[in-house]
Parts: sequence; C-alpha cells; structure tokens
Amino acid sequence: MEKNRQTSVDLSHHLSRVAKARSPSPLKDLQKYFGKEGIISLAGGLPSPEYFPFASITADALVPDAFSWTPDNGSSFAWIWNLFSATKEKTTQVSIPKYSTKPEDLNLATALQYSRASGIPQLQEIVEKFTAQVYKPAYTDFKTFLHTGNTDGWFKTVGTLCNPGEGVLASEWTYPSALAGMRPYGVRPVPVPMDGQGMRADALHKLLSEWDADTRGMPRPHVMYTIPVGQNPTGAVRGRKRSMTYVSSLVNVIIVEDDPYYFLQLGPYATPAERSPASDDDEEYYLSQLVPSYLRFDYEGRVIRLDTFSKTIAPGCRLGWFTCNPVFAERLERQSETSTQAPCGFGQALVTTVLLDWQSSGYIRWLKGMLLLHLSHFSLKMQYKHRRDFFIDCLAEEFHLETEPAIHGIYEGCDVYHVSQRSTVEKPGYLAEKPDPAVLFSFVPPASGMFIWLKINFDNHPALSSVGSEELENKLWVALAEAGVLLGPGNMFSATPVSGNEEGFGHFRVSFSNAKLEDLKRAVSIFAQVLRAFHQMK
Amino acid sequence: MEKNRQTSVDLSHHLSRVAKARSPSPLKDLQKYFGKEGIISLAGGLPSPEYFPFASITADALVPDAFSWTPDNGSSFAWIWNLFSATKEKTTQVSIPKYSTKPEDLNLATALQYSRASGIPQLQEIVEKFTAQVYKPAYTDFKTFLHTGNTDGWFKTVGTLCNPGEGVLASEWTYPSALAGMRPYGVRPVPVPMDGQGMRADALHKLLSEWDADTRGMPRPHVMYTIPVGQNPTGAVRGRKRSMTYVSSLVNVIIVEDDPYYFLQLGPYATPAERSPASDDDEEYYLSQLVPSYLRFDYEGRVIRLDTFSKTIAPGCRLGWFTCNPVFAERLERQSETSTQAPCGFGQALVTTVLLDWQSSGYIRWLKGMLLLHLSHFSLKMQYKHRRDFFIDCLAEEFHLETEPAIHGIYEGCDVYHVSQRSTVEKPGYLAEKPDPAVLFSFVPPASGMFIWLKINFDNHPALSSVGSEELENKLWVALAEAGVLLGPGNMFSATPVSGNEEGFGHFRVSFSNAKLEDLKRAVSIFAQVLRAFHQMK
Repeated sequence: MEKNRQTSVDLSHHLSRVAKARSPSPLKDLQKYFGKEGIISLAGGLPSPEYFPFASITADALVPDAFSWTPDNGSSFAWIWNLFSATKEKTTQVSIPKYSTKPEDLNLATALQYSRASGIPQLQEIVEKFTAQVYKPAYTDFKTFLHTGNTDGWFKTVGTLCNPGEGVLASEWTYPSALAGMRPYGVRPVPVPMDGQGMRADALHKLLSEWDADTRGMPRPHVMYTIPVGQNPTGAVRGRKRSMTYVSSLVNVIIVEDDPYYFLQLGPYATPAERSPASDDDEEYYLSQLVPSYLRFDYEGRVIRLDTFSKTIAPGCRLGWFTCNPVFAERLERQSETSTQAPCGFGQALVTTVLLDWQSSGYIRWLKGMLLLHLSHFSLKMQYKHRRDFFIDCLAEEFHLETEPAIHGIYEGCDVYHVSQRSTVEKPGYLAEKPDPAVLFSFVPPASGMFIWLKINFDNHPALSSVGSEELENKLWVALAEAGVLLGPGNMFSATPVSGNEEGFGHFRVSFSNAKLEDLKRAVSIFAQVLRAFHQMK
Repeated sequence: MEKNRQTSVDLSHHLSRVAKARSPSPLKDLQKYFGKEGIISLAGGLPSPEYFPFASITADALVPDAFSWTPDNGSSFAWIWNLFSATKEKTTQVSIPKYSTKPEDLNLATALQYSRASGIPQLQEIVEKFTAQVYKPAYTDFKTFLHTGNTDGWFKTVGTLCNPGEGVLASEWTYPSALAGMRPYGVRPVPVPMDGQGMRADALHKLLSEWDADTRGMPRPHVMYTIPVGQNPTGAVRGRKRSMTYVSSLVNVIIVEDDPYYFLQLGPYATPAERSPASDDDEEYYLSQLVPSYLRFDYEGRVIRLDTFSKTIAPGCRLGWFTCNPVFAERLERQSETSTQAPCGFGQALVTTVLLDWQSSGYIRWLKGMLLLHLSHFSLKMQYKHRRDFFIDCLAEEFHLETEPAIHGIYEGCDVYHVSQRSTVEKPGYLAEKPDPAVLFSFVPPASGMFIWLKINFDNHPALSSVGSEELENKLWVALAEAGVLLGPGNMFSATPVSGNEEGFGHFRVSFSNAKLEDLKRAVSIFAQVLRAFHQMK
C-alpha cells in the first residue's frame, strides 16, 4: 500500500454560482456551543423524544457469512448455499432502544431526532474507516459524509459544480436518471468516445485540448460523470483509472465516480466446460482483486466518489456517502441542510446497528458473500446457476453464437458475441470462429453489474429505411412487452439524441439480477420468437 | 362538511423553466406493463431481496392512547400522565417480515426495494384518506404523495415553480432554511407585512396590485411561502385563510402551506389562576377545534400543502407528503425520481406498520395525545407543567410583566406582554395594566408551535447609536451562550437584511419544547442576569 502523499489542492474555482451563493451554515455559530457541558439549548425546534412512538426497534439480521460455500461430495459444481440449509443459525438479533445507558451508544432518541445533514456520528465513523481501508485515497484530508443515495448525491453534485449552459462529460451510453436530473437545469451531457473498458483517456484529452467554446456553444466542460465499474448499461470495468486521473489533472476536470456496482465485479465469462467454481477466499485477497477506485490515484482531491448501500444492503436504505475534498464537502453539506437534511434516521440506525454487529471485517465478508452469490448462484433446492452465465446459456440454446474481437467502437478490446439464427444442421450454439453475415444482435458478457447490453441489428429489417432505427427499437420493445417480456429500452440510456448515435441499430438493457431462472429462460424463448417474427414485419 | 365543488383549474402557467424542461418519466411506458399478470421484467436493475440482510424488523410502538389523562383525587391540576404509571400495557409490538403471505401486506422485500418516488402504496393510501378526512380539500382531483420532509418538499416546490430572478412572498420573519434553500438559486424573499395573525390579506393585495416590475427589479411574485400554524418563529395561528385564498386567486398566486405544527394548536395563554385542565375530548371534537387548512378554501388547486411526520412521529422519519393539483403533482414526482427517489424504505415501512396498527382513528387519538401533552405537561414524578406556561411563569418570577393590546405591527390584534425590571416593592410579576417606560423586551404567548419570539428593546442601550441593533443582538447572543444559554438568533429568521427591519430592536427565538423544566427555569434566571448586565455595557 502506498502512503498518502499530500493534502488536497485548491479546486474551489470549480464551484458553481449556486454553490458560491450558498450561505455558510446558519448553525455554524450555534454548533460551537452545542454539546458543550452545562449549556442549556433553547435554540432548536427539537420535539421531545418522549413523544417518539417507538420504544425500541429490533431486527433479525443475516450474519455476515450467511452466504458461504462448502464443497459437496467433491463435485466442482455442487457447492451448497448454506443459507437454505441452516436458516436458524444464520441470523442475529440486533436492537436499538430509545435510550441507551452510554450516550455514545446508538439510540432512537438521537437517531430519530433532528441531526447534522452529514449523518449520525457512528455511521460516519464506519464509512470513514471503510473508505480509508478499501479505497485508500491518495491524499490525507479527504472527507466522508452521508447522503440519501447516489442519484441524489449526483443531483447535489451537479448543483454544486455546474452552471446552466455548461456540459458534463459522460460516456456515449450511461445511466438515464443521471442525465434526466441535470437536463432541466440546462446542463447537457457531452459524450466522450468509449471502448470496451469505458471512456477513453486519449479521446478525453483530444476532446478537451481541442475544445472551442464558440463552435461548441458551451464553455469547456470541467466535470465528468462516470460509472467506472459495471458501466451502466454496458457493464464495462474501468481498467485505466490512473491514466484517466492523469488526463483529468492535465485538462482540469473533476471526476464524479458513481460506483454502485464496485463490489459486484464478476470477472470474465467462461463457457460451462471452462467454468471453475467460485472460491471462498479470505477478505484481504477479495479486496485486492477489486479494480481500485479513482480515489486511489487522486492526489489532488479532484474526485467526488459516490458510494451507496442500495446494492449491498437494500435500495430502500436511500443511504450512501460522499468522499471528496474538504471544500466540496462543506458546500455539499450546506446543500443537504436546506433540502433533504440528514438521511432517514430509521435507515441510518438499522444499517449502523447491523454494521456495528458485523464489525468491519464482517461487512467485507458480507460483500464478498454477495459477489459469490452473483458469481455462482446455486441453491440447495434448485441448483441455480450463475445468473449472467445462465442467461447467455439460454441464448445459446435459442441462437447461434460466434465471437469476434472488436477493434473499434464501444466494444474495442472485448470479445463480442454475435448472435444469428441457428441453422438446423449445426448442433451447439457456441462460439464458431467467424461471424455470420445475418447477425441478429451482438453483446459483450459484462464483467460486473447486473446488466447485459444487447445491440440489435436492424440492417436487414424491411422497414428500416422508412421508419428509422429509433422507431424500430420502440416497436420491438412494445412487441416484447405485449408478448410478456420487459427490457430496458436503449434510447433511455443515450447521452445524445438517439438518431445521432448508430443508425441501423437498436439497443436493449437486460437485467439478470432479479428474475427467477425459469422466468429468465422463458423470457429468452419469448425474445427469440418475437425477434424472428419482428424481422418479417414490413 | 361542505361538498367538494369541482376539479382543479389549469395552473400550469406557474411551472418554472426547469419544471417545463423536465422530461416525462422514462418509466412511464414501462409502468404500463409493470405488475401486469404473467409479465417477466428484465428492465429494472433490481437487486434480489434474498440479499437484503434483514429477515424481519420488529418495533415496540406506543399505543395511540399512550398519552391519556385521568383525573387524580379531584384536584384540577393533578392529572396523571399514564405513560409512566403503566409502561408495560402501553406498547404494542408490530413486525414486518421480509416476505408476506398476501402480496398486498407490508413486507421488507417490497419496502426495501426500488419503488415509485411517490411512496409505497399502503402509506399513500393512508395519507390520502387522512388528507380527505382531516383537511377536506375543496376540489375533488387533489393528489397526495410522499416526500422526504417539508424542507425538501419546499426545495422541490421552489424548483418546480420559480425561475432565477423571481421572488417568493413570505412573512417578514420566517423559517431560515426555507430562505436558505432558495437564495442560491437566485430566488429572493419578498416580505409581506404581518400582524398578530400572520401575513395580512389586505397588504398582500395592495403589494401585488401595485407591483411595478421595473421599480422592483423583479417580475410580480406568483408564489407565497407560509407557515400558517405556529408561524415559525412567532407562533401566530392563521385565522383568515379564506380571505387569503380569495386574494391569492384575485392576484394569481400559488400558496405553499408548510404546516408542521398543525396538530400543536395550543390555544390562548392563561395565568395559573385562570387555567383549566386539559380535557380528553373525543377525536371528532378535537379535529373540529383545529383551524382549517388552506386546502379547505382552495377550489382551484392553487395550494401546495406540505405535511410532515417530523413533529407527530419523529424528525428522523424524513417523511411527509404533498397535497396539490394533478399537474403540479406529476412534475414534483418527476423531480423526486431524479434526486431523492422514494423516501427511505425503513422509515416508510415502520411508520406504515404503526399507522396500520393504530388505524386512522388511532392516529388522530395519538395526535390529540401529543397536543394534550403540550397543553399540560404533567408527569407522575416531576409534576411538569405546561411548558409554554411554565416558561412564562418563570419570566414572571424574574421580571415585571404587563399586557397591552397591540394596534400595529407584527403583533396587531394580540395582547403583547411587555417585560421590565421588577421593582423591589411590587410583589407579583403579573399583568399590570399599563406598560412600564423601561421595557426590556416584549412577546406574545404563542398559540401553537414550540417557540416564543422575544423582541428585545435596545433603545436604552448606551451602545445602540455606535454599533447598531444587529451587532447588539449578536453581542447579547454570544454573552448568553457564554453564560450557558443558547437561543435562536433573530437575524437567522429575517426575510430581509436585518438592518432594514426594526432599528432599536433585536430578536431571539426560544424553544420550550425539549429542555427539562428545571433547565428551562435556570435558563430564564441566567437570561435575566445576562440581560441586566448587558444593559450596563457600553
């Protein structure tokens, strides 16, 4: 582990007009006296905790190693998911009383009271230690503080860094709510070319070095939005963060790292024959295998990292945290004070009490267990297989799959799977060497996240020239929905108007995270039927 | 009860540029198919609920009549707070399992999952029924949907209705976070003259009818912010909502009713001798005694009402709801989708399960119980008295109090209490007929809310002419803090720069909601000492 080098540099010139106009906290002077021994506060409008109708809250929480693995009879595939085999031992009971004997212990009287927007102290301490241990920021004075989920974290970041009329650098395809949140404020996405690893550092440098505000109609963008792991929707893992951070420093860009899928790094896809079982390595090894965060390479404080409990505990937590330099942190906390205030006290208290019970090694064990589940989704009852692989296996039963190394475009550097009609003579659907001329769609097996990104070929569709690909994508989406399968429509994810993207193609995002495996299989079968019928439509 | 007259009128011209630029929900088409029988959704990025580490959550909740009253030995003051006398019987256990047998029953698998920004269906249904029953909106197609607390509700409302450079009508003194949230976006408060009942309808009409955009440097304001009950910080109750709604319709203003203290309407202050005990009337009578909401007089849909569970359940809920016309509702929900998303699922689930257990009559019983507690704060152990009255009683022990009906200014129509040095000869501090020339400070006993607003007279202070009242207020605030008493500094609550308000006066907001009564007493004693010493300072 490298040592932290220095404190953050002054990046306050990045603050938006809104952030600069924001007052210092009106509570700043008051806070100097808060909690001082012997002081009587009649300043806040605090209801008395006696009136909170919750005397105590108790949760049955899974233990950190609820998802653990034991080999069964030596068969490399017959690992057992212990959760189902021994439910009783696998939960622990945690309780939060209204009043605690030691004031520093978690209690509802404090957690359900008004509190600092940055979160309750116990949880702040946990995320600060976790950030230091797992992400190892490269400068010393980084700040961590809670927010109400990454979507709101990003919304607040845009307000803090961007003025109307400015642009935000984003991948060609990205998370729709990130775009939808900033567009009404007159902040437009500026797409940066991607390859199979996500946004390209050389393309970023070229774009910004040659930027001409007059031609472009906007000042040079100074903020980048990126989902580096499990790039939503294409599932790319960023393997070039050091060079991206270097370029961002050269061209003075703030990197906003929205990273919900960090702990779901799935590794490469392998065919059933090549697949080895998931292994239950120790926590240190698990962490060391993860692609580092941008924080690891950021010696200046130009990264704002957004972490969330949505994918690691539950989306309903509406809880996550910022990691950034102290100047941005102070402005972001002021913004929370006048909007969401602190995250929900019930959520904070319940997540905190479970994390305290688990301790920090337990939480990392839990994260590893979730990844194991994603890597090899077995259960005693149903012999579930890995969801992503299962989905691709289903495709291989319906279609003919061939691989080709991509040499340009958003798949550059990856093996692309081209999918075509299965000829009746061939037996296996797998992995022929050269692409079929009549490719129906293509994809790259995602190395992380919950999604497969399908690129549909409309080139041979009889109606392409008359209605265009966007309309064909819509028609196919509706036909699939009417037949009983809902996919994410590709145009939702586009940073630019779709027509400007790739004429002749449509896109869908398929989530393999949640459906029952038999439904996943049935969905692929319906998809195959509808797609075949669709290509006959005029 | 009057019948609802009509549906809302078209007020969409009030939407801001931001609200108009906001896209329709990208999920709108998807939602048509969501939940349709037999459909397989691979569209959302939903983590599997199997991985939520909460197997069940259980709460010990107080029962609705935990705060009930029984007369003790016939003494009119010796009512007993039952909570302390019979703790065991006064809680009920509610549980939320991860999976419910009936899908419509509350469960963690749904409540902790991603969900609609408007909230979980069970809670939406509860607040809709509650709104219809308690506030009786005057038009039929009103919408209710959840938000993450009134401060965020107001922040979203400003974004939905106001453009930069516009003004928002507000009382001369108001809630600081409401002002702090809008100022950075270039939306400025426009103070409207008040009297003892809050904002004046005639003043509003005059201000807007005579509005000249060129002189004023901003277009005519079309949005009003008001805390009609327990006007923060002065505690006024709005008794003239019908005329205000009428004027707002004449001058085309949207009324935003931020109403956290609605259920804490305390009634007039009476001296100990005149005081009658709190009575435990039935729920219908309790509701009928409350000042109606603006919704009751709004036949057009020009009121956006903000309700919160912060003062009735706990601030940490970060949970409340909007009531407004369907056009504003649709835009506000889109804004939540791209920022906070749904309120925290833990908070929603726990509040819902308690409200379901209590049923609607139980919740109203609970609200009445809280009011009773505020009205007559007794307990078995300490014979606590009514907090507001106790505070004023303490003042009367330290100072000489006289009342005078106010005929102008923010206290017009109220009995103002003028406080002066107690002469050594007089015995009781109470209620002489004419004001002392050397008034130290004045106040009006608040009829609702948690605050007393003190107006400090600096007219006789030797340093007034050299440093001015704002600086004197700051100095006195620091002197009090150093002596061990924290008050809310008045300048925080001013809609305009303080110097423009009332030269010669300073203001403090005193919260009587939370401190122990012995601390409240000690605070008044410290306040008296510091104030006396302060007036000797040069």
